[in-house]
Amino acid sequence: MSRELTVAVIQQNAWPDKEKSLAASDEGVRAAAGRGAKLVLLQELHATHYFCQYEDPALFDLAEPLDGPTSQRLEALARELDIVLVGSIFEKRAAGLYHNTAVVFDGARGRVGQYRKMHIPDDPGFYEKFYFTPGDVDERRSEGFTPIDTSVGRLGVLVCWDQWYPEAARLMALSGAELLLYPTAIGWDKTDDEQEQARQKQAWTLIQRAHGVANGLPVLVANRVGFEPDHSGVGSGIDFWGGSFVCGPQGELLAHAGTETEQLVVTLDMEKSERTRRIWPYLRDRRVDGYGDLTRRYRD
Amino acid sequence: MSRELTVAVIQQNAWPDKEKSLAASDEGVRAAAGRGAKLVLLQELHATHYFCQYEDPALFDLAEPLDGPTSQRLEALARELDIVLVGSIFEKRAAGLYHNTAVVFDGARGRVGQYRKMHIPDDPGFYEKFYFTPGDVDERRSEGFTPIDTSVGRLGVLVCWDQWYPEAARLMALSGAELLLYPTAIGWDKTDDEQEQARQKQAWTLIQRAHGVANGLPVLVANRVGFEPDHSGVGSGIDFWGGSFVCGPQGELLAHAGTETEQLVVTLDMEKSERTRRIWPYLRDRRVDGYGDLTRRYRD
Repeated sequence: MSRELTVAVIQQNAWPDKEKSLAASDEGVRAAAGRGAKLVLLQELHATHYFCQYEDPALFDLAEPLDGPTSQRLEALARELDIVLVGSIFEKRAAGLYHNTAVVFDGARGRVGQYRKMHIPDDPGFYEKFYFTPGDVDERRSEGFTPIDTSVGRLGVLVCWDQWYPEAARLMALSGAELLLYPTAIGWDKTDDEQEQARQKQAWTLIQRAHGVANGLPVLVANRVGFEPDHSGVGSGIDFWGGSFVCGPQGELLAHAGTETEQLVVTLDMEKSERTRRIWPYLRDRRVDGYGDLTRRYRD
Repeated sequence: MSRELTVAVIQQNAWPDKEKSLAASDEGVRAAAGRGAKLVLLQELHATHYFCQYEDPALFDLAEPLDGPTSQRLEALARELDIVLVGSIFEKRAAGLYHNTAVVFDGARGRVGQYRKMHIPDDPGFYEKFYFTPGDVDERRSEGFTPIDTSVGRLGVLVCWDQWYPEAARLMALSGAELLLYPTAIGWDKTDDEQEQARQKQAWTLIQRAHGVANGLPVLVANRVGFEPDHSGVGSGIDFWGGSFVCGPQGELLAHAGTETEQLVVTLDMEKSERTRRIWPYLRDRRVDGYGDLTRRYRD
């Protein structure tokens, strides 16, 4: 019993120039589709540089509506290649209301859903709370921790900072997600020493693999590469660490990128999730009677 | 700013003979205390063989009250060595009511708390639902996912199968636990091939390290070693894989055991958790407004 799905993760550079950045995305997606990928994941905010390194109201000009030029281009590409394509845009929902949004295109069906990043970070060099309103919680409107149905399966799409929250992955799994996907943008602060840099990258890798383990699902992670300066001149810039990967439902690494532009293409056995859940049936034993306080900020 | 705590994890063989098994625990604890450990963790059900490989009502004879002979012995040892000692017993709470219980002894203070395993597995070779009633949920009675206060800190003690549930670790962290501790008993089925065995052990290691990452806490894991036959003659026995470890709040491995008897002794910087949470402040951004469905069995 097996159902195969060839998936791809695109790891690329990106620049303030949208045309140049989207051309790199286009090239990566075409290469992956040429190698047989039917589901392709792009990294977070792949159409531009990672602009959240400083706060500048002028940068809201980079945002686009859900069906803006970047989405239109991705939609056309998915249609042409007949693939499911997961992109990431800086979404302008209304004047003064912006989101960090993953958009999903499904061949001839066009855009079949979107996910607005729920957990928004804000740390030196990652001033996302200035730019992005967190996604809403409204399952009836397919908002919040709701997977997106496509022709290749039900996708549990989350974005970057969400990756540190087991709650998010679990809710996607409880909604029947068949894969977890994380477009991300994370890198090193050059002022940290090598040991600290190694610990950070390892922590990031293992917690996402652990979401696969906890939920018996494959996980796709796309991260950017390359050094991007802080154009405000204040910060020291971010050295995006790459390390995109695909792992199976036991958290086993199936493909793992280095620190340069790369397309990972992996054929998954989609029946392995059920086989894994039969030997490690975690969903059977959850203590839902004892989890109520997970909705508390702190148990004090 | 640092507060040091030397901790130890005891990885040992165990046998149907309680005296022999407890002598091995005693020896390991004394060795660790001799190396300066102030907090010592023993593996799950260290006083006996792993008897859950088959179902036999006669085996309930192995159970003891909370203050039975095994606890008394551990209590005396903790008092003599002036340490905090986390043991694991097969608890007889009443006739026909048994738990898999971690017991915590704190030097001259004696027994300061216990944790009754909340998630109970039941799989071929691990027939725990026959032997153990899951722990109750009643925070007012310090039951359920409630940490235990000791002279060395607030301990988030969980047991084995709990280790696969991010919910359990999170609830301990939300209750102010300063360390996560997992006495466990897990091993290989000899009928699995080497690749499958490697995936299982790796999954087990990484998900527990990930609890450290998600919660910014150090994690102590004690597992047993050695082959234990299925005394019923039906199963092929379990080859306990060892691999006990101590990791820091970034999930970084500080000590990692092999597959033989071993005591890991590590000095933790207990202030590192707060430093880690300052750079990766996950608790700040939890979407408690969107986590309500974590108490549902499935979102269908």
